Amino acid sequence: MTLADPVLVADIGGTNARFALATVGAAGIAVSDRQTFRAEDFETIRDAAAAYLESVAPKPKRACFAAAGPIIDNAVDFTNSHWILRGDEIAAALAFDDFLIVNDFYALAAGIAHLPASALIEVKPGDPIVDAPRLVIGPGTGLGQALIVPTTTGDRIIATEGGHVSYAPRTELETEIKRFIAREHPRVSVERLLSGRGLVNIHRALCAIEGAQRISLQANEITAAAVSGAYPIAVKAVDMFCAILGRVAGDAVLSTGARGGVILGGGILPKIRDIFLKSEFIVRFSEKGRMSDYVAAVPVRLIVEDGAALYGAAASLGKKA
Amino acid sequence: MTLADPVLVADIGGTNARFALATVGAAGIAVSDRQTFRAEDFETIRDAAAAYLESVAPKPKRACFAAAGPIIDNAVDFTNSHWILRGDEIAAALAFDDFLIVNDFYALAAGIAHLPASALIEVKPGDPIVDAPRLVIGPGTGLGQALIVPTTTGDRIIATEGGHVSYAPRTELETEIKRFIAREHPRVSVERLLSGRGLVNIHRALCAIEGAQRISLQANEITAAAVSGAYPIAVKAVDMFCAILGRVAGDAVLSTGARGGVILGGGILPKIRDIFLKSEFIVRFSEKGRMSDYVAAVPVRLIVEDGAALYGAAASLGKKA
Repeated sequence: MTLADPVLVADIGGTNARFALATVGAAGIAVSDRQTFRAEDFETIRDAAAAYLESVAPKPKRACFAAAGPIIDNAVDFTNSHWILRGDEIAAALAFDDFLIVNDFYALAAGIAHLPASALIEVKPGDPIVDAPRLVIGPGTGLGQALIVPTTTGDRIIATEGGHVSYAPRTELETEIKRFIAREHPRVSVERLLSGRGLVNIHRALCAIEGAQRISLQANEITAAAVSGAYPIAVKAVDMFCAILGRVAGDAVLSTGARGGVILGGGILPKIRDIFLKSEFIVRFSEKGRMSDYVAAVPVRLIVEDGAALYGAAASLGKKA
Repeated sequence: MTLADPVLVADIGGTNARFALATVGAAGIAVSDRQTFRAEDFETIRDAAAAYLESVAPKPKRACFAAAGPIIDNAVDFTNSHWILRGDEIAAALAFDDFLIVNDFYALAAGIAHLPASALIEVKPGDPIVDAPRLVIGPGTGLGQALIVPTTTGDRIIATEGGHVSYAPRTELETEIKRFIAREHPRVSVERLLSGRGLVNIHRALCAIEGAQRISLQANEITAAAVSGAYPIAVKAVDMFCAILGRVAGDAVLSTGARGGVILGGGILPKIRDIFLKSEFIVRFSEKGRMSDYVAAVPVRLIVEDGAALYGAAASLGKKA
């Protein structure tokens, strides 16, 4: 189906909201007029959306927002900010005929088929099984995950909560890090290590374990310091982050039978792209004992297009229509 | 579709093979003439199948065998016995027009809709999401798993390898047990604890940790001793087995988005049914921090029908036709 008139699409996280217009045509999805608004500059998401809509004409009558958080009763409460996204309120205030909220990794999964070729790079080759599920996974606000399950009538997208499975440390150092995190969060899920806050946790734990002077860094400061090489512990934290992500992604492939491929998303990996591609990710991904061949055959790609979820938001609206 | 003539179905594990005839009709699947053969009594699976076929008439022209192991090139090599199941060889030697090998948990998942009501008991109630995936999981030879994904054209069954994900210990005692197992298998997957051999591993580890006299018990001896209460360490091993299974099953629900329900299968749980139903399984299953409500809403049932995979083998053949 096609959406001849432009629709409003958004990708809303804890710290900012990205808005754009999308048209769904026979030639694919086109996304234009992108603008990003910071959560700290707007009291509500409605205000941010209204500010965006002032700049475009004609005003779209349909909209889909991808949100980084669980959708409960058509609303999302963002853990990292004061924003709350309420579907009914937005639809009424902005006079949309049709308004949809989807999980951000659901949107990412729904959008992959519509991304331009330049949006994805290869992390490792593989020998995918065409009709097997594909896994979308990536660290950002949390460790988002979704499954793409091929069916006889097209792909079915399933949002999962794989970021919340129990964390299984492999080395003694990883066990130490788990103990450090467990002081604050007795149940250590993989998301406690593999997310923006997770990277902060790994860095803090390494500082404590190595008895180093504790430099309090945010996630984007740690990734920047790792890229520049400014702080050795930041470099080490990012290396561990990549290695642990490899193991966790490999486990997720086993859990879901995702022999069709893995697509990495989220905001963190593109920022550490070169480090990531040279990291232990690939080795740890396939290191599964008797099941190593099974996992090693799975190709892995990385989404490097910043607004990938916007394509998926448009596709989700198209699907629903 | 219906299979008017009886088909041969089998459920083949490391220690025995169960054969039966099945008819697929409008009223459902009927399974009759069940017989079990021990692997130690027959040199090959073909010999066992031929022995079974001598006792039935007319001889079925179509067959489906469910096998406890990975299917590679239409063959299954059973780790626990000398048996190797080769599809081409069986089809030729027994003159089947149609012969299919499926994974045993694939068969279990495919058969659930066809089981008689008495085949399942409730472990915990829940509030399932009707069109969400359902997870089939259970300890036996390994920790088998499969997903049932509803689609617009019926259920799609996906065999997974979730039994091979990394084991995440929760308590200090569990960490000790992991270390004990890691001496023999450096990468400790959940199957190293949650299977017949896994139960043996837990029991051996507990004996070593508690400095108890090491009584070497097989899995069926441990479950029998737990039921009779003969050995306190066997009781403790089975209790831990149930608790760990709860945590691992809860993690599998998070990984796969299986909000439609969990169905427990495999040969071990029915043998310890009363202990299992009173165990920590349910508490550990839902103990997922912020995601506890998500998992607690998922209903869990246990398959107590011994030949459940036989129904699934018949259903798989019906589906393929």
